[in-house]
Amino acid sequence: MPSIFSKIISREIPAHIVYEDENTIAFLDINPVNPGHTLVVPKEEAPNILESSPEVVRHLLDVVQKIAPVIVRATESDGCTITANIGEASGQSVFHTHIHIIPRKYGDGHIGWSQLNPSSNELSQTAQKIKEMI
Amino acid sequence: MPSIFSKIISREIPAHIVYEDENTIAFLDINPVNPGHTLVVPKEEAPNILESSPEVVRHLLDVVQKIAPVIVRATESDGCTITANIGEASGQSVFHTHIHIIPRKYGDGHIGWSQLNPSSNELSQTAQKIKEMI
Repeated sequence: MPSIFSKIISREIPAHIVYEDENTIAFLDINPVNPGHTLVVPKEEAPNILESSPEVVRHLLDVVQKIAPVIVRATESDGCTITANIGEASGQSVFHTHIHIIPRKYGDGHIGWSQLNPSSNELSQTAQKIKEMI
Repeated sequence: MPSIFSKIISREIPAHIVYEDENTIAFLDINPVNPGHTLVVPKEEAPNILESSPEVVRHLLDVVQKIAPVIVRATESDGCTITANIGEASGQSVFHTHIHIIPRKYGDGHIGWSQLNPSSNELSQTAQKIKEMI
């Protein structure tokens, strides 16, 4: 079954498309975090950005580099957050690779997430575990 | 003046490095949102991911695709959030391109940001403005 994004690509479902090329489409998130919040989506379906091919991801980032500065200017924003969620636990709700471009303004209230303060020893153990598995 | 990340690359400042190649380094964030929170950094300095060259960004994403699944497994997480902040307004604090890999677990409390509910007309106007500028 095609994803909701594939239905946007095939024009079965309408969307506010801001950019399209052979491999990629970009359209506004209908529930934006801030105005201009855009989703950049490869036409080739994969569940998330880690499962798309490197070629698809590289082109996706080329498009992000091209359109993100324009989105920031068009919405008179001060910067942006570029993000991708992988897996339901992260808040991913559509399992078709997509990157969020979220325009940001000073004082927009979307502060960062709370952070931990681990000991150097705890960090060492975590790093060791990751290094061994790479 | 070299950034704090360049000082990590040159080993002037210690870090919990989990991956390194000719162009890229990855090390643990010392104030992780969740354990295993990793920063992936190109050795070539630029202020943010939109100002690094497309080649640098493509390689950076190759590394993210390579190490993010390992970080998720090593920390026994359920997914991850991959994110980059552009500009002080977005919360960027080190002005040397970097991508966050944040392992996520169900119920970790890092829910998404609040969202708006604009009219179709408002979305159309925003999309039109962006499209005209691309």
